[in-house]
Amino acid sequence: MADKIFRVNMTDLSTSIEDVPAEWAGHGGRGLTSTIVAAEVPPTCHPLGPNNKLVFAPGLLSGTTASNSGRISAGAKSPLTGTIKEANAGGTSAQKLARIGCKALIIEGQPQDDSWYSISLKPGEITISKEEKLVGKGNFAVVEDVEKRFSDKIGVISIGQGGEMQMAAANISIKDPDSHIRSLGRGGLGAVMGSKKIKFIALDSGDAKVEIADPEAFKAANKTFTKALVDHPVSQALGTYGTNVLVNIINEAGGLPTKNFSQGQFEGHEQISGETMHDLIVERGGKPKHGCHAGCVIQCSQIYNDIKGNYKTSGIEYESIWAMGADCTIDNLDQIAEMDHILDDIGLDTIETAVAFGVAMEAGVLAFGDSNEMIRIMTEEIAKGSPLGRVIGNGAGNVGRTYGITRVPVVKNQAIPAYDPRAIKGIGVTYATSTQGADHTMGYTIATEILGVGGKADPLSKEGQVELSRNLQIATAAIDSTGMCLFIAFAALDDSTCLPSLIDMINARFGINLTANDVTNLGMTILKTEHAFNTAAGFTNLDDRLPEFFEIEPVTPHNAVWDFTGEEIDTFWNF
Amino acid sequence: MADKIFRVNMTDLSTSIEDVPAEWAGHGGRGLTSTIVAAEVPPTCHPLGPNNKLVFAPGLLSGTTASNSGRISAGAKSPLTGTIKEANAGGTSAQKLARIGCKALIIEGQPQDDSWYSISLKPGEITISKEEKLVGKGNFAVVEDVEKRFSDKIGVISIGQGGEMQMAAANISIKDPDSHIRSLGRGGLGAVMGSKKIKFIALDSGDAKVEIADPEAFKAANKTFTKALVDHPVSQALGTYGTNVLVNIINEAGGLPTKNFSQGQFEGHEQISGETMHDLIVERGGKPKHGCHAGCVIQCSQIYNDIKGNYKTSGIEYESIWAMGADCTIDNLDQIAEMDHILDDIGLDTIETAVAFGVAMEAGVLAFGDSNEMIRIMTEEIAKGSPLGRVIGNGAGNVGRTYGITRVPVVKNQAIPAYDPRAIKGIGVTYATSTQGADHTMGYTIATEILGVGGKADPLSKEGQVELSRNLQIATAAIDSTGMCLFIAFAALDDSTCLPSLIDMINARFGINLTANDVTNLGMTILKTEHAFNTAAGFTNLDDRLPEFFEIEPVTPHNAVWDFTGEEIDTFWNF
Repeated sequence: MADKIFRVNMTDLSTSIEDVPAEWAGHGGRGLTSTIVAAEVPPTCHPLGPNNKLVFAPGLLSGTTASNSGRISAGAKSPLTGTIKEANAGGTSAQKLARIGCKALIIEGQPQDDSWYSISLKPGEITISKEEKLVGKGNFAVVEDVEKRFSDKIGVISIGQGGEMQMAAANISIKDPDSHIRSLGRGGLGAVMGSKKIKFIALDSGDAKVEIADPEAFKAANKTFTKALVDHPVSQALGTYGTNVLVNIINEAGGLPTKNFSQGQFEGHEQISGETMHDLIVERGGKPKHGCHAGCVIQCSQIYNDIKGNYKTSGIEYESIWAMGADCTIDNLDQIAEMDHILDDIGLDTIETAVAFGVAMEAGVLAFGDSNEMIRIMTEEIAKGSPLGRVIGNGAGNVGRTYGITRVPVVKNQAIPAYDPRAIKGIGVTYATSTQGADHTMGYTIATEILGVGGKADPLSKEGQVELSRNLQIATAAIDSTGMCLFIAFAALDDSTCLPSLIDMINARFGINLTANDVTNLGMTILKTEHAFNTAAGFTNLDDRLPEFFEIEPVTPHNAVWDFTGEEIDTFWNF
Repeated sequence: MADKIFRVNMTDLSTSIEDVPAEWAGHGGRGLTSTIVAAEVPPTCHPLGPNNKLVFAPGLLSGTTASNSGRISAGAKSPLTGTIKEANAGGTSAQKLARIGCKALIIEGQPQDDSWYSISLKPGEITISKEEKLVGKGNFAVVEDVEKRFSDKIGVISIGQGGEMQMAAANISIKDPDSHIRSLGRGGLGAVMGSKKIKFIALDSGDAKVEIADPEAFKAANKTFTKALVDHPVSQALGTYGTNVLVNIINEAGGLPTKNFSQGQFEGHEQISGETMHDLIVERGGKPKHGCHAGCVIQCSQIYNDIKGNYKTSGIEYESIWAMGADCTIDNLDQIAEMDHILDDIGLDTIETAVAFGVAMEAGVLAFGDSNEMIRIMTEEIAKGSPLGRVIGNGAGNVGRTYGITRVPVVKNQAIPAYDPRAIKGIGVTYATSTQGADHTMGYTIATEILGVGGKADPLSKEGQVELSRNLQIATAAIDSTGMCLFIAFAALDDSTCLPSLIDMINARFGINLTANDVTNLGMTILKTEHAFNTAAGFTNLDDRLPEFFEIEPVTPHNAVWDFTGEEIDTFWNF
């Protein structure tokens, strides 16, 4: 049976299962969510009002046996940035959705009363149910309860208290193979789900499978693709140390934003580094290597146990550790892991929330380095929706406005992540020009600037950085459409067999004949679709700028400032 | 001696007194502040950072004997709206500044440490002093103390705790002839003054006088002008009931925004009306008629006493009474007067703050109608900078973002004042297109739509409203440059002797030959200068829109929605 569009209207609680319009057929993941949002959401609507829509889509290869193809995308107009937004995550939902035969789930409208609901999907079936029991609960309780109601094989998409309270830092949680949490992290999509009064979505694919047009060709291509992935040295480092291998590397480069972006190196970097974390995990009987979804061959995730050897958190990323660590000057991994777990449960983006804490520390709300107070605020204030909790839960920009702070590291109101753009300039181009606010994953120039993947670029020089960011942003938009993890990009940039075999898999899946050029064009089309939405929402090239403080405050150790002119940045869109 | 530019640099604490550049010579008041801000402030700078400047300017006729010429303008990039901003007020400062020979006071830079300062001006002299004693104090304590240090004749410009904490609703206070407070209310200019660490500015003009080129012609023109003012029926109504005469009128028109803009009429309107207030003031031995500055012949201000006959507040405006009254569903004038007094002391815009309370009530932070809790929050939370106090003190938009509310009545993040744009459409055009966010005083179409001054327009019809708003916005920009109170506009629209005599006074003051055409051109030039600044700051025509809820929620009693298209609104700038 051909894949369908599943549509849910929360105003009148109606549902429909529709044929896929021809113009959406070639899209998946981010390409599809952005295409649908651009087609159906009025760009100037209020993100939390009835005219916004929340769209979920598995990638083109999700649900197949293709390595690393288990990413699910969600899209909407973002309540954090006001731009179009796509966020993606691992877990089990992409594969379930694809096997259900759901090319995209579109949730529109808004209940007129205060009732809460859940949605469940099966092949050919959508059910909306009232939900009372889980309202006010965290994501872990939701997953546990939903598994009891259905089965432990059920896919779960949920929001915690953050999403219920429509906080702009709220993420959407995706159950992973161990019934833990992965996050559609950025842009506040959890608030959009909360505005539609949906506590969780249960996905039951039963025994359904994805159809492959040419199974033999698919299998052969997947073999080549998988070898390219596992052979790349960055894949191997990620498998050993996780993304947190970057703490020491970025600190060495002088680009580890510290103490709310007032320094480029953190004295306590060794205590929170990937190497230290690896040894601690091994010592406590955790897993240093772990996949966030079935079929992952890189396995950058991990199981982090507490000092007694009990599970504490999993999939703790470099960016989360940096944000709660260096940016808030906290050098205690156990405290960071505890906070990571709490934020997973409340359902808040670790980057946005921790950077918001950094700004709150700058404002004197709490002291830099006071992780006990951070934990108290998370559990006593944010989870309970106190005024301070709301201020922080609505992100770094909101804290800055509320406390009259000028050193607020955001672009389009989204917190800047773990790489200082003064010392690593290419990533600053990505922050500035991304269609979705500051986001390193939109065009990860760190690969080339710092890791030497796909060529070399001097992080302290402006030369070639706009082009580098542009090429990576185009490629990323395409990769984000396949259901592939972004970390295939390291192999794709260095191994000439990687990208062709990925394209071969897409062709074998659908019985089509995409070329490498088609894929590049897809990436460009997605960026332009997103950019056009933002323009129609009122954004201009003047929004493609970093905050003023990066231009007027040099950062140690290089004493570098952000020195791109607006004109230079604006050449990004020359394609 | 020719008027000079007084300049203060707060980064290095240097001062200078400079000749007026030729291109600034013909400007005063708003025309001058906007011209200087546009010339010297980078449009994309952070409003609270060192690159913003705060400019004060008396009007062209301030300091003379011209009736109603005592308005002072302040300008900067607004921390509330991000646009260029001008606010003006009565009191004694315009006259003092003009007599000191200060055409404009420009305050730039920002101290590098946490010290606070005061500035004092005399003819030919600027002094910067460290200030410790008054930091943390409200405006009434500041005025009392500064008068003791200097004399009770001193002019005082100050900020309360709101400005110190750089709240975006913070205003700048101007001492009036009775040592009470007038406010440069909107746009958060108090936060800019706070960011420059200036607690107060003392103005000592001694015996200095403004020079008049042709005293006889001036005197004759002023006589004609004054007669036009005092003869107009609206001037007379304003003198009897104050601006609060409007409560019953606007309620009758179905345009009195009630319960956070969810209704167009307020059940308790009679209890808070101008008629009720007039009787109460008389009964308690207050003054129903009172001028906010020497030379005012309209006298729309009043002295409001408490039930024991002691002074409570003065100059309580219709918009303040509406905001704390109908919008928060409070029908008790004594409670409203108490809040007006508290906000004067803390130094917060009554419109922005009360509309923020309305949104907070919508969010469930406190109940609609709970004035005791409002007073508690003002004194215990806002004045002390608690998280909730900061949330509300940063305005209605900030409350909306922090609590995920969609019914947030703001344009360019500034609270919409006391006239519902669905039921009184012309004023909606002004809210949408004003260069400074929602502000009724920028183009007061109520005059024509509701009061029948300067012609007639059906408030429920779109016809002619864009043109009406445009003409009034152009005229207002010119009037705001003269030092005249906006309320001369009623006479100017209906009495053919009013405007020529005003122009005659300007010509007699400076020995020049302005025509009516020149004045219209001045208004247009000011609007275009302000608009160009905003465009360079990143604003587009898509910012000239009302919030979505006005389009999708009809308001009682007319069940009207906001139905202007974007294209219709954009014709405003066709001049």
